Amino acid sequence: MKEYPMRVELEQAIQIIREKVAVMGTEIVPLSEARGRILARQIVAEENVPPFDRSPYDGFAFRAKDLEEASKEHPVTLRIIEEVPAGKVPERKIGKGEAIKILTGAPIPEGADAVERYEVTEFNEKEVTFFEPVKSGSNICLAGEDIRQGEVLMEVGTKLENARLGLLAALGYFEISCYRKIRCVIISTGSELVPVDHPLIPGKIRNSSAYMIQAVLREWGMECDIYGIVSDNSSHIAGAIDVCAQKYDVILTTGGVSVGDYDFLNTSLEELGAEILLWKVKMKPGMAFVAAMHKEKLVLALSGNPSAAAATLYLIGGAVLSYMSGKRGLPWEKIKVRMYHDFPKSSKGRRFIPGRLCVKDGEAYLDSCVAQGNGILSSWHSCNVIGEIPAGTPPLKAGSIIEGYYFV
Amino acid sequence: MKEYPMRVELEQAIQIIREKVAVMGTEIVPLSEARGRILARQIVAEENVPPFDRSPYDGFAFRAKDLEEASKEHPVTLRIIEEVPAGKVPERKIGKGEAIKILTGAPIPEGADAVERYEVTEFNEKEVTFFEPVKSGSNICLAGEDIRQGEVLMEVGTKLENARLGLLAALGYFEISCYRKIRCVIISTGSELVPVDHPLIPGKIRNSSAYMIQAVLREWGMECDIYGIVSDNSSHIAGAIDVCAQKYDVILTTGGVSVGDYDFLNTSLEELGAEILLWKVKMKPGMAFVAAMHKEKLVLALSGNPSAAAATLYLIGGAVLSYMSGKRGLPWEKIKVRMYHDFPKSSKGRRFIPGRLCVKDGEAYLDSCVAQGNGILSSWHSCNVIGEIPAGTPPLKAGSIIEGYYFV
Repeated sequence: MKEYPMRVELEQAIQIIREKVAVMGTEIVPLSEARGRILARQIVAEENVPPFDRSPYDGFAFRAKDLEEASKEHPVTLRIIEEVPAGKVPERKIGKGEAIKILTGAPIPEGADAVERYEVTEFNEKEVTFFEPVKSGSNICLAGEDIRQGEVLMEVGTKLENARLGLLAALGYFEISCYRKIRCVIISTGSELVPVDHPLIPGKIRNSSAYMIQAVLREWGMECDIYGIVSDNSSHIAGAIDVCAQKYDVILTTGGVSVGDYDFLNTSLEELGAEILLWKVKMKPGMAFVAAMHKEKLVLALSGNPSAAAATLYLIGGAVLSYMSGKRGLPWEKIKVRMYHDFPKSSKGRRFIPGRLCVKDGEAYLDSCVAQGNGILSSWHSCNVIGEIPAGTPPLKAGSIIEGYYFV
Repeated sequence: MKEYPMRVELEQAIQIIREKVAVMGTEIVPLSEARGRILARQIVAEENVPPFDRSPYDGFAFRAKDLEEASKEHPVTLRIIEEVPAGKVPERKIGKGEAIKILTGAPIPEGADAVERYEVTEFNEKEVTFFEPVKSGSNICLAGEDIRQGEVLMEVGTKLENARLGLLAALGYFEISCYRKIRCVIISTGSELVPVDHPLIPGKIRNSSAYMIQAVLREWGMECDIYGIVSDNSSHIAGAIDVCAQKYDVILTTGGVSVGDYDFLNTSLEELGAEILLWKVKMKPGMAFVAAMHKEKLVLALSGNPSAAAATLYLIGGAVLSYMSGKRGLPWEKIKVRMYHDFPKSSKGRRFIPGRLCVKDGEAYLDSCVAQGNGILSSWHSCNVIGEIPAGTPPLKAGSIIEGYYFV
């Protein structure tokens, strides 16, 4: 049996696994389906957006010079030589004493250097009268104001969301090269588990972690199936992992990774000849964790404790899966936040507490539930920040500043 | 022609529309598909989770009283009378001098009031020896620790995400009553628009706003189709709105809502006999906006300017659609944030600036792009906070505190 690292630090765990996995392949995705996907090529603007100088208002285009002397007492009247609706191109060039009626979004006619709104003029079919000067350049949206030709608009690894889809559309990207979605599956192990739609008999609990993990992975943009419950039998577990390795990129398991008689995961992985990468991480919750490679697929074996499973899912799974997905950087920003509540326990080892970022009077707080036990899934309700309490920290008062992993 | 309010405040606009729309109907959704959905019934826990007192470790259960005198010098040995794996129920009751071998997740045997881990004992098949006392209650995860029977776990209108799915699973909810997803459609109006996959001819721009709006609405959990581009012809636009009212709950349009000769939206709505609810909102960007009801369906007519469309989409659409979706409260929290950059313009009217929440040294900042023009879609890149600058505010320095709408 090969040796593997045990009781490693979080950062080591991430690094050990990242060295073994590869970024997904790419595929072409239609623009309308690209939300949440990770960009696989750099986007350089091949055009200006908008592509031409245009009017932001319905009004008149003219030479600012012609209105230099305009005033209430001495209005200036220009001759209307053309009318240009949006979507049409001016056919005439503006000369001295001339104006072109121009509508929102229409290109600025040649010769004109300013636009004024209808509302501050008087006009009929043939003429328009101005009562004050207008500066050269007024009311002109410049070509390239939104995106400049040649500009690097998005880097490889950008997550496509909201306005980014609009920018891609503006540049004519009706389909986009993205990384393939990671296909994940969750195998739940443990003879104490029953399916969620079965009656609860004494000594049994329902298979809840699988649904939490599925929701988190889908939130992160991955595909995720629930395989089902495998009882505490190392060959059954091995068989399940082996068959899932044919269809999925990542296999997540829950249960069977601590040290007990019935902790079968390592036995199963050894039976398969899988390469175990590490066992146990120095964090609370989340000590019980195994990572392995089987037939070039990643196996992340999480604890049977929901909260411990959540901690390793967010912090190790988050980093590794984000890397595989092709996304730039880590899935979190490290921030300093204040504790919103007291944290009443001493932390002998390195501890992570889930919570939600909340902002009060310009300051950022980690709003964590008070209950933070290992089995307390409720505390992960709507987690978007995980606070870190270093080993050897006494109980913390509300207001204390700690480091947080802010999932963005 | 009926009178309708014009140039209203943002809050009035939201209220006027909310009074006309209804919350969606409900439907039953399988647990695995419920992520992001809005809960349509209150969830009261009908059971404790976990359902019984259980062991968090592999170890031994016993009466703490028996170990009162235990020490390194005077160890206490108990007789092992049974072994209970997880998923099984203890058959025997513990008496004086007895212990039961118990595995992670197994129910605590009757008579026992403490558990100790294997690692700190010595044991064989028949006996286990302890070297120190163990307090009554040690290492027992109590029934209801995660969820207490009778507890109101989630209110109507809760968004189902991440760990909440796990909690529902733990309680046996394999299907859940949720509000139906809002079905939205986007009609893009404007003769200057070409489809994203067509070549760009002079004077034309691509239909980019539709993709931005689609991405935002899907992000918010709605269904959203893109109808296509309708030219500046009030009957064509009326026809498009009328046909969409048969299939969709909400019709969003872009373009044709300011005051120009070619602004057809109001004419189209009048041609249809639609009830116009309001026209124009006192905000920048986003002044140009119409809301109407047609055949009991909501029409939100946004500006042709991408940034103005985005502002009314987030702030008016956000509030109204969130209400219709059944979600509790508003889609944002009002927070105080500091400006991360200078804002160089004076604000004559009420102004909204999109940005992203960023946290530095425990303080919350609005990180906005510098460019904030009306046509500048780039500034909405990855917006999750919209800052508000009150009317009559001079340019703002970085570090100034403003109010922000934090979309959560």
